[in-house]
Amino acid sequence: MFANAMPRYEILSEEAMDVLDRGWRRIVSELGIEFLLPEAVEHFRAAGQRVEGDKVWLDPDFLLEQAAKAPRSFELQARNPERSLHIGGDHMAFASVYGPPFVREGDVRRDATMADFENFVRLSQAFEQLDSPGGTIVEPNDRPLDSRHLDMVYALQTLSDKPYMGSVISAENARDTIEMGRILFGSADALEQAPVSISLINCNSPLRWDDRMLSAMLEYNRANQAVVVTPFLLMGAMSPVSVPATLAQQMAEALSGIALTQLVRPGCPVVFGSFLSNTDMQSGSPAFGTPESAIGLLCTGQIARRFGLPWRSGGGLNASQTVDAQAGYEALMTMLPTFLAGANFVMHAAGWLEGGLVSCYEKFIMDIELLRMLEVEFKPLEVTEESLAFDAHEEVGSGGHFLGAAHTLMNFRECFYRPLLSSTENFDRWQRNGGADAAERAGRIWRQTLDDYEQPPVEDGVREQLREYVARRRAELGDEPIPAPAF
Amino acid sequence: MFANAMPRYEILSEEAMDVLDRGWRRIVSELGIEFLLPEAVEHFRAAGQRVEGDKVWLDPDFLLEQAAKAPRSFELQARNPERSLHIGGDHMAFASVYGPPFVREGDVRRDATMADFENFVRLSQAFEQLDSPGGTIVEPNDRPLDSRHLDMVYALQTLSDKPYMGSVISAENARDTIEMGRILFGSADALEQAPVSISLINCNSPLRWDDRMLSAMLEYNRANQAVVVTPFLLMGAMSPVSVPATLAQQMAEALSGIALTQLVRPGCPVVFGSFLSNTDMQSGSPAFGTPESAIGLLCTGQIARRFGLPWRSGGGLNASQTVDAQAGYEALMTMLPTFLAGANFVMHAAGWLEGGLVSCYEKFIMDIELLRMLEVEFKPLEVTEESLAFDAHEEVGSGGHFLGAAHTLMNFRECFYRPLLSSTENFDRWQRNGGADAAERAGRIWRQTLDDYEQPPVEDGVREQLREYVARRRAELGDEPIPAPAF
Repeated sequence: MFANAMPRYEILSEEAMDVLDRGWRRIVSELGIEFLLPEAVEHFRAAGQRVEGDKVWLDPDFLLEQAAKAPRSFELQARNPERSLHIGGDHMAFASVYGPPFVREGDVRRDATMADFENFVRLSQAFEQLDSPGGTIVEPNDRPLDSRHLDMVYALQTLSDKPYMGSVISAENARDTIEMGRILFGSADALEQAPVSISLINCNSPLRWDDRMLSAMLEYNRANQAVVVTPFLLMGAMSPVSVPATLAQQMAEALSGIALTQLVRPGCPVVFGSFLSNTDMQSGSPAFGTPESAIGLLCTGQIARRFGLPWRSGGGLNASQTVDAQAGYEALMTMLPTFLAGANFVMHAAGWLEGGLVSCYEKFIMDIELLRMLEVEFKPLEVTEESLAFDAHEEVGSGGHFLGAAHTLMNFRECFYRPLLSSTENFDRWQRNGGADAAERAGRIWRQTLDDYEQPPVEDGVREQLREYVARRRAELGDEPIPAPAF
Repeated sequence: MFANAMPRYEILSEEAMDVLDRGWRRIVSELGIEFLLPEAVEHFRAAGQRVEGDKVWLDPDFLLEQAAKAPRSFELQARNPERSLHIGGDHMAFASVYGPPFVREGDVRRDATMADFENFVRLSQAFEQLDSPGGTIVEPNDRPLDSRHLDMVYALQTLSDKPYMGSVISAENARDTIEMGRILFGSADALEQAPVSISLINCNSPLRWDDRMLSAMLEYNRANQAVVVTPFLLMGAMSPVSVPATLAQQMAEALSGIALTQLVRPGCPVVFGSFLSNTDMQSGSPAFGTPESAIGLLCTGQIARRFGLPWRSGGGLNASQTVDAQAGYEALMTMLPTFLAGANFVMHAAGWLEGGLVSCYEKFIMDIELLRMLEVEFKPLEVTEESLAFDAHEEVGSGGHFLGAAHTLMNFRECFYRPLLSSTENFDRWQRNGGADAAERAGRIWRQTLDDYEQPPVEDGVREQLREYVARRRAELGDEPIPAPAF
């Protein structure tokens, strides 16, 4: 996996940090946070915090004490040990888009299906730039709502050998994810050693945690499974129209959720989450890849490091309706600051389109290209005597060219980034070859990648147990049987 | 104009700087640099450097002494004093694309004409993000080669009131640019006060300066007009396939050219130029917006600051054939590092397409959007008690929304970036409105901008003198008379 050994780009002064620090402390202590799950409130009451109904007023230093119990970094196991991840430090893990109900394929936009879900898991498996397929890469709308999480977890576990994200719809779904993890990894003990799943717990911002997500979170905490505790902040809607105010709110919400995880199980793995962008105040719609979201990313990295916690951000976010120039620049306007800020777990790193309503096949490929480029760009430059290639200068001299120089011939294969998607073809050749733009070329690439896909082997016994579990639980949930998938 | 008060992103260690320092010193002292203009060679000989034919072996410390005579920053005058520029320090000036023979307008790619040139000057004038229209925004192929510079300078001087770039084809063309500057600014004395033009002098890399560009440069130096001394480096062709080797070469070439300017006229304004990208080793074509070019940008900024010189880079560079996703991400992959590195004079900041062969109207608008976004992104975040908007949190509490909060209503107009081109429309509305992608929307914007364009006033007497100069010189150059333009 990628480790970012380049400098972090930090823009907050100590004075600014102090102001933000006062900000979140006032929010948690004076306004309080709502936890719509009695068990959560009870944890805080038992720990000495002031409680009234769903609301908890929190002592800021108590929150910091709890957050300090969380690991600074942790291992996230993959069933293929070579694909296990280190979450934290300089490491950056990348996962596919998460959550869209729609899919886009070329010019067609339609409801997503289980077949799309499976395709995206295969694509996530195929590209080494992705460390995880993520979780709900698309919503499989052709499957019943209450049992589709079983189909998704099964596909994530068998079509990929990378770590995956679990269901967070309810405690019951979380227990299914955990049980299937125990089957895949052979024992409950394996999960106690280190998490095998990582799951996204969103705050119902502002200042409220909902019961269903909280109850799922607590299941994961108890089972030592990683969670990403994420304030969900579109400035102007879920937070004030001010970046500093939003950062203070993000700190208040994240720390309150993280403290809860550590009350449930001290030392359990947790990630400081950030999903921070702004409303377009002209259209009222969410905007992505904005200057404000980039500033938010840079600040959030600095803040999370201050707390000593691994942190999560978005990846190729954009608001565009198609894979056009806007999709290109907005995605990079999110992704380049993500690298500058050194995010540890990057969700939505491939496929996100249309403000997150669409998982797009072509955008998926475009994002892989961005990741490939940035992993080269954020590799420290080695400056040595040898790298000066003085012999090449001696050979070529004045006014010549280096195309045939010995140094060039020795190094030409590895010397520069080689694109997957980008074209440098001259115009005539490009036109003769069909004049395909980047989106059209991306279409060829994902189709070819699916054609070339090879499923990582799964033990027959394990596959059978997983299938039995899915079939049994589906029946318990009252849904009709479905023929076992071909994989 | 924009001043970049954000931190610089610097990636070279002191050790790396020392290695690069040894690198350029060896090149200039052991290999030498060719100057294909006897007058230039004579300057170096007179200053005690070793000379043989066209080749000059240079004492590195002598080069640094000469470079130290150049101003750390300087004023570049506009005929409208409000548009005069400060070149250097934290300031960043942006100029349009320079040099393409072709133009792209929607799906049509064709030879550029004088009418295109005039259109691009008008667009450059219309957008405040551009500080200069640049120079040869497109080649006006419908005008005779030897007198078209007169038409271009006239259009730059009259359709815009921003500083412009001069012709560098020959000493004679440079003299025409200077003479027309004297007419526009009312006296020769005005040019002695501060430059009114800035001109691009490219090195015929590797390690050679051609006679025509050099002779133009010397004219500008003598007349106190600014020059941008630019090694032209596509790694693999004009320099070794190594970023450090290329940086050392860039230092050697730039310092050798800059030293010459200071021998001609100590203290004359000069900019450390950089045009650094790489060859796509698969296609053999130039590639832009690459990881290597971004690394080169970051390093070049650090190096130029070390020498205490204002520096120049490219802007929205990309290799794409159309205004597609690749054009979007490659342009930003160049432009964002340009801001991180704090370039002082940014050429090709709007309109560049297809590796610089095409000036594209739609890309021009896309680049204006990038500049608008980045100027917001690179404005230091103000973190104050007031910015925490605690009253908004008190008003909204838990689980509400901020859309109607008093703080939002007071600030919604100015709180976030408002896009020019990017769309956040929801899919249904976007489709009802025609489903135009970013390139198509850009087409509407540039046409509307041209419709709304208003020419900045020029004194009749000055216009008449300029016209007379152009007509006289055209006749002297042996070209047929052309009716005076309508502007």
